[in-house]
Amino acid sequence: MAQVSKAAAIGGGVIGAGWVARLLENGIDVAVYDPAPGAEQRMQAVLDNAEHAYAKLTLAPRRKKGALTFRTSIAEAVTGAGLIVESVPERLDVKQKVYAEVEAAADPAALIASSTSGILPSDLQAEMTHPERLLVAHPFNPVYLLPLVELVGGGKTAPETIERAKAFYASIGMHPLHVRKEIEAFIADRLLEAVWRECLWLVSDGIATSAEIDDAIRYGFGLRWAQMGIFETYRIAGGEAGMRHFMAQFGPCLKWPWTKLMDVPDFTEELVDLVAGQSDEQSGAYSIRELERIRDDNLIAILQALKVKDWGAGKTLAAYERGLVDAAGAAVAGAAAFDPTQPIPTLDMRVPADWTDYNNHMTESRYLQCFADASDALLRLIGVDADYVANGGSYFTVETHIRHLDEVAALEPVTATTQVLDAKGKKLHLFHRLYHADGRLLATGEHLLIHVSLKTRSAEEPAPAIAAKASALASGHAGLPQPEGAGRAIGQAR
Amino acid sequence: MAQVSKAAAIGGGVIGAGWVARLLENGIDVAVYDPAPGAEQRMQAVLDNAEHAYAKLTLAPRRKKGALTFRTSIAEAVTGAGLIVESVPERLDVKQKVYAEVEAAADPAALIASSTSGILPSDLQAEMTHPERLLVAHPFNPVYLLPLVELVGGGKTAPETIERAKAFYASIGMHPLHVRKEIEAFIADRLLEAVWRECLWLVSDGIATSAEIDDAIRYGFGLRWAQMGIFETYRIAGGEAGMRHFMAQFGPCLKWPWTKLMDVPDFTEELVDLVAGQSDEQSGAYSIRELERIRDDNLIAILQALKVKDWGAGKTLAAYERGLVDAAGAAVAGAAAFDPTQPIPTLDMRVPADWTDYNNHMTESRYLQCFADASDALLRLIGVDADYVANGGSYFTVETHIRHLDEVAALEPVTATTQVLDAKGKKLHLFHRLYHADGRLLATGEHLLIHVSLKTRSAEEPAPAIAAKASALASGHAGLPQPEGAGRAIGQAR
Repeated sequence: MAQVSKAAAIGGGVIGAGWVARLLENGIDVAVYDPAPGAEQRMQAVLDNAEHAYAKLTLAPRRKKGALTFRTSIAEAVTGAGLIVESVPERLDVKQKVYAEVEAAADPAALIASSTSGILPSDLQAEMTHPERLLVAHPFNPVYLLPLVELVGGGKTAPETIERAKAFYASIGMHPLHVRKEIEAFIADRLLEAVWRECLWLVSDGIATSAEIDDAIRYGFGLRWAQMGIFETYRIAGGEAGMRHFMAQFGPCLKWPWTKLMDVPDFTEELVDLVAGQSDEQSGAYSIRELERIRDDNLIAILQALKVKDWGAGKTLAAYERGLVDAAGAAVAGAAAFDPTQPIPTLDMRVPADWTDYNNHMTESRYLQCFADASDALLRLIGVDADYVANGGSYFTVETHIRHLDEVAALEPVTATTQVLDAKGKKLHLFHRLYHADGRLLATGEHLLIHVSLKTRSAEEPAPAIAAKASALASGHAGLPQPEGAGRAIGQAR
Repeated sequence: MAQVSKAAAIGGGVIGAGWVARLLENGIDVAVYDPAPGAEQRMQAVLDNAEHAYAKLTLAPRRKKGALTFRTSIAEAVTGAGLIVESVPERLDVKQKVYAEVEAAADPAALIASSTSGILPSDLQAEMTHPERLLVAHPFNPVYLLPLVELVGGGKTAPETIERAKAFYASIGMHPLHVRKEIEAFIADRLLEAVWRECLWLVSDGIATSAEIDDAIRYGFGLRWAQMGIFETYRIAGGEAGMRHFMAQFGPCLKWPWTKLMDVPDFTEELVDLVAGQSDEQSGAYSIRELERIRDDNLIAILQALKVKDWGAGKTLAAYERGLVDAAGAAVAGAAAFDPTQPIPTLDMRVPADWTDYNNHMTESRYLQCFADASDALLRLIGVDADYVANGGSYFTVETHIRHLDEVAALEPVTATTQVLDAKGKKLHLFHRLYHADGRLLATGEHLLIHVSLKTRSAEEPAPAIAAKASALASGHAGLPQPEGAGRAIGQAR
């Protein structure tokens, strides 16, 4: 299942289009059936957003994008598909009719995944010929970025269907959560519905506006929930006494009049007007497209921040990237070999969000961080690895000359190359060039390193194997011209 | 009010200690009254976390930490305080008794801010002599990091009290949200309570475990809510048709059986055991202290990611940093006169614990961080402050020459001095010396800075007042010998 190469999407609204985008970006061909007027154009807007997002999401080698086709019938769309994604309106009769048409033409082994937010899979599959391959795979908008997908089987769903789906959704960068008991609205939408009802009461009663409620979320518990859920957060709040203490402390509130949730607000035209009007006031300065881009950029930045911490959704992104690197195995093996007559690639990264000054450019000292990291990469290449260091040998930088030539902003991609100017005895003389991925030379770093004994912390000859490798690199680079700016003192004329 | 220099904290539990940490880190002296055994030690753990967090939160020059004292009576603690933070247990009678003791000794103009999660301020202030200065300032754990503070006035609270509080909490890096109508549990805790009830049902009914529910949050809508709230998110989900369309689509769900919220789960011993057991299984591999550090590091990474995007809580952090830079500029402007014929003291700090490599020495790039900070201090001295930068003028470093002469370990004290080698036209040529407090010269940094227009991002003459001050410093230093190592190229003989 992790090897789906062709999928069908029945229904191309916000959720259907989000699925199509995620599948295409992961190299899966998708045939779409959506008879609504303008469906193709609306889908293109989502695909544009996804392309924009994936270009920033990861530096790992991305899969070649899948091919998109539009079909005029369900039968045409599902023919040859290993996965059929159903995202049609939330009506059981409509969905069951779609499944009948799907089954008439699809491979009986193809998975059928419904995007429903709340209908029970047992009801969905009731009339099917091969109900064992139907499951709910409930995603969250934007589908191409948010990792969560709730997997729910019905009474007739085969356990193997759930296992295949888990492996597949993980392979396209998602976090599959198996909802083991079939309930309406599953897990996340139950929580969302609870919050939504309370929010509508707050607006309806004139307690707070939509903007104020949103601020109460995003400046407070929303930040917490991007990385730990409610239980882990409350466990911490309980202090060393933990969850039991927390519950004892807050248990009584359950009976206090803290919410109006015992009632459901009446869904009147007045309430719609009130909420829609407040929403216009809050967010109307941006178009929906602008809001989508802002949201996506924020989500990417948060995912990348969590990736640095190797936590939660960041861990999912890291696993996804490892998968991409594995998939590009041959290319990676090729990248390990470099041309010995040319400067060596020693850095390939994005500027982390916390490396920036108040105006979001990479801060001065992080240029040296890039060069230090490039030096480390070069040192590993000549055999100065963890073992060598543990045995007491290392290189210390004794002198550095940096020329700052251009600026780079947070999250932008940079690379570095290293030219070995000299490697004799204890001395290693390096010249790094830091580039933006667009080709601009951002800075150069010239560094004199001295081999030291970590025991005496003074200069000492490197081990012969290290010296030989360093010398070989220097010989390989002997034919390169002296870099512009090398050997220069500060302020010296060019 | 934004100028509070001394505060009192009555009650030092998780929330009280979090307030104390935020106040101290913002340069405010705090006197604490908490008679509970071990209160001082428990508070120290929170202060340690906050110190760890603030060292990473911002690169802006931080305020000198406030002084912490413990007092044995409320009267002693509140004497001379401009702000009194009450974080005692959630019982109206206990809180009212505290206010009586507070009012007997406090300045009548001092603000009294209750941390209560749910008690109405009108009830809190009912018995007070000066009720107009009481308000609820309800924060969120960890108080030293999360920006949200809900401000709620009671019937007798003066409007001016709310305005003073807004300005003050903004000055310490928070996002004050004025809850305009007094309701129990205010805004955020109403939403949290709604989710919490539904979560307890899901666990109690065996639908999902605490870990599964937390994953449903943090891999999905939690990521959304770190940057946009529920209304803005749903507005986007409605597509170009916006909020009205979204509501029309999902309005009917309000009547569907999507939650169990019409009931409140019974708070039984069995439920506590179930939740506490699942929480142990989910998070028990970490101590509470470890979870706190993980949470804080994640929050900082998210805040910094959003700062890059200048959005939501990141915008609050950016504003806070601008305030710190302004304050540092004012401090430099007001600094004691220095000897104009000698290198100028521009840095005085301890090496932060996270600036070090695996063997606990300050890592290479942080030497440049020290020199960049010294350059910033020198620039503030010649008038390049936040206002000047906001008006489009600044200096960029174009060239750097560092000599590494000695090592320094984590938490050791370092200082730097700056000699102005030249200041003519757009050019500013600086020579920094980094010293260990024991007198050892650790490194030298020679830097060429060019004045730029931040609009065109190209070289431009500085404002005459800046040029005059820079030139005066250079003249004062004209009699100093050329520093050893200045004007040297890499590897050049001494």
